Amino acid sequence: MRDVVIIGTGQTPVGELWEKSLRHLAHDAIMPALADAGVERPDALYVGNMLSGQLVGQEHLGALIADFVGLRGIEAMKVEAACGSGAAALRVGLMAVASGMHDVVLVCGVEKMTDTLGDFTTSALATAADQEYEVSQGVSFVALNALLMRRYMYEYKVPKEDFAAFTINAHRNGANNPYAMFRSPITQKAYAQASMIADPINLMDSSPVCDGAACVVLASADLFRSRAKARILASAVATDSLAVHDRRNPLVLDAVAESSHRAYVQAQITPADIHFFEVHDAFSIMAALSLEAAGFAPCGAGVRLASEGEIAIGGRLPIATMGGLKARGHPVGATGIYQVVEAVQQLTGNAGANQVQGCSIGMTQNIGGSGATVITHILGAI
Amino acid sequence: MRDVVIIGTGQTPVGELWEKSLRHLAHDAIMPALADAGVERPDALYVGNMLSGQLVGQEHLGALIADFVGLRGIEAMKVEAACGSGAAALRVGLMAVASGMHDVVLVCGVEKMTDTLGDFTTSALATAADQEYEVSQGVSFVALNALLMRRYMYEYKVPKEDFAAFTINAHRNGANNPYAMFRSPITQKAYAQASMIADPINLMDSSPVCDGAACVVLASADLFRSRAKARILASAVATDSLAVHDRRNPLVLDAVAESSHRAYVQAQITPADIHFFEVHDAFSIMAALSLEAAGFAPCGAGVRLASEGEIAIGGRLPIATMGGLKARGHPVGATGIYQVVEAVQQLTGNAGANQVQGCSIGMTQNIGGSGATVITHILGAI
Repeated sequence: MRDVVIIGTGQTPVGELWEKSLRHLAHDAIMPALADAGVERPDALYVGNMLSGQLVGQEHLGALIADFVGLRGIEAMKVEAACGSGAAALRVGLMAVASGMHDVVLVCGVEKMTDTLGDFTTSALATAADQEYEVSQGVSFVALNALLMRRYMYEYKVPKEDFAAFTINAHRNGANNPYAMFRSPITQKAYAQASMIADPINLMDSSPVCDGAACVVLASADLFRSRAKARILASAVATDSLAVHDRRNPLVLDAVAESSHRAYVQAQITPADIHFFEVHDAFSIMAALSLEAAGFAPCGAGVRLASEGEIAIGGRLPIATMGGLKARGHPVGATGIYQVVEAVQQLTGNAGANQVQGCSIGMTQNIGGSGATVITHILGAI
Repeated sequence: MRDVVIIGTGQTPVGELWEKSLRHLAHDAIMPALADAGVERPDALYVGNMLSGQLVGQEHLGALIADFVGLRGIEAMKVEAACGSGAAALRVGLMAVASGMHDVVLVCGVEKMTDTLGDFTTSALATAADQEYEVSQGVSFVALNALLMRRYMYEYKVPKEDFAAFTINAHRNGANNPYAMFRSPITQKAYAQASMIADPINLMDSSPVCDGAACVVLASADLFRSRAKARILASAVATDSLAVHDRRNPLVLDAVAESSHRAYVQAQITPADIHFFEVHDAFSIMAALSLEAAGFAPCGAGVRLASEGEIAIGGRLPIATMGGLKARGHPVGATGIYQVVEAVQQLTGNAGANQVQGCSIGMTQNIGGSGATVITHILGAI
């Protein structure tokens, strides 16, 4: 199996980008990534996307985007794993290069969630949950996370206001990221006063509906050593039941534990060796549960890690270092690639005011559904 | 790069399977494939599917199906390339094993097109075409193929009745396939009397809307040599513009030519070495154009290959040997896997009355859109 490195990255600002269609978003992430990599014609394009069929009336994004960015003819396809689609596409790109089938490939995550065909983004997102066992009962994706958060608060006696630490951290970091959707720091008071969406989840516990695209160029380490910006040390996928009620313990994300464990084994490290963690904080409860299942905190202590400041840039385990899903934004199929682009910024010392000093190993984790697909990558500095 | 073999196959009958939900269809293809392979717990599952988000209200099929078939925890994701989704998933499975990341993986193509959420299968299928440049003008997928067929008849002076040979061949072969949707031979007269759908395409030129699932188990050749049923000699993807009007020449499928060429080079063979060809005959015009671009007939002579009987089981190049998309059926995301399952039947001498005598090399070609994504596999007997 060949070693794989990242040789270029690109991203669009995240937001309500009504003037950009889906293919334009992808273009705006791919062109800077190719320029950054110094590559004109990669061998293949793997697109991470979840919702284009439902929201844009467009499937077949692989060939569509390849053609639109001037790469007509190359291998192209789309990979989907709900909100984990970006990292799933990254994994396919990794396999293409690691196998020797291709030497240099593009991986682009893209999602267009605003200005869409109909006003049904919430029901489209619910297709990440189990249609027959959950959604048919009227539950939305936010409601499922609300059930988890309520149970967490009850089980571990954690007051709701303690979750604010995740949001405050994300917005503090997002404020310094020019690509972030929300660039204003928030206070404990603002969190307490935020509108309730699905009790106990309020607006400040939730990542936004938004548009965006991000791209990385992967290449064989042997062939592109001089252009390498980061190494991929591990890549692992694990799954769980879509239906939350069917889990062993809804407060323990088994797929996070398994995916993280496989990644640690591949990279031959332990959680203590991770210098920063791009966590899938689609909701603040997901951040807490991920920290616990990935081995950074005991069960019930994930929120405390945040409230004690350990997740800040100077803390023991910085998370959401460029704003995370909450403040940078969560264009679902693109999120997994944004995480990797930001990890490369950190590992190359290009994270500006949010730089994690002396970091050489970072972890990204992209989740589909309420923990049903979990894809972990560990990246190392050159 | 490791050699990869197919060690098990499974398929459901194709039809209007109203009593089966999408996950049940997948189950009914996966379980026999695992039993056939003698494997209990594969390392990963790659699902080929195009329409589940739009028609079933369910994305995230990877984890959903893995869990439903008793494989909770394994790596799983969905791959999409419109009607070429099945072969796209196969290619990802191939990369997973060839790279050494996994030793044995499942690839399942599944589509549920009947008994769906709304009565909009035609518009869902049109998401394989270019939404902004084609579909917004009111064109459907059938209409695009009708334009191609009309142009072909004009350009090459081929009468419409000559296309009947494709349908007659497909139905003759489907009659002997217990998994085929249509098992009744048809006559030239029945073709001539069929209802017009989009002039000049009539009902007998078109593959049906239907449900089905098919599955193959891929494994490392070195580790599973004794169970191998067929070898994968080549795998290649090429793309073109989605929009038919944007092609160099609408009657020359460049992506078919390029994908086939790459596959021939990988397998170190020429078209003359192919013993049978599972062609993507979603419409009879697609069969004709594919035969030409893949190198089996000069431009304008694809229909003659059919009308002269060369595509029949005993002919020079048998195609659609188990009924093809027209008679076996075309559950879009599953079709690419059905083609491979049928190729394995041929290569292992298990094709019954449709056996191509003495065959040892077969080609399958799965197409997304009107030739925008073309995925070719060449399989060899053990």
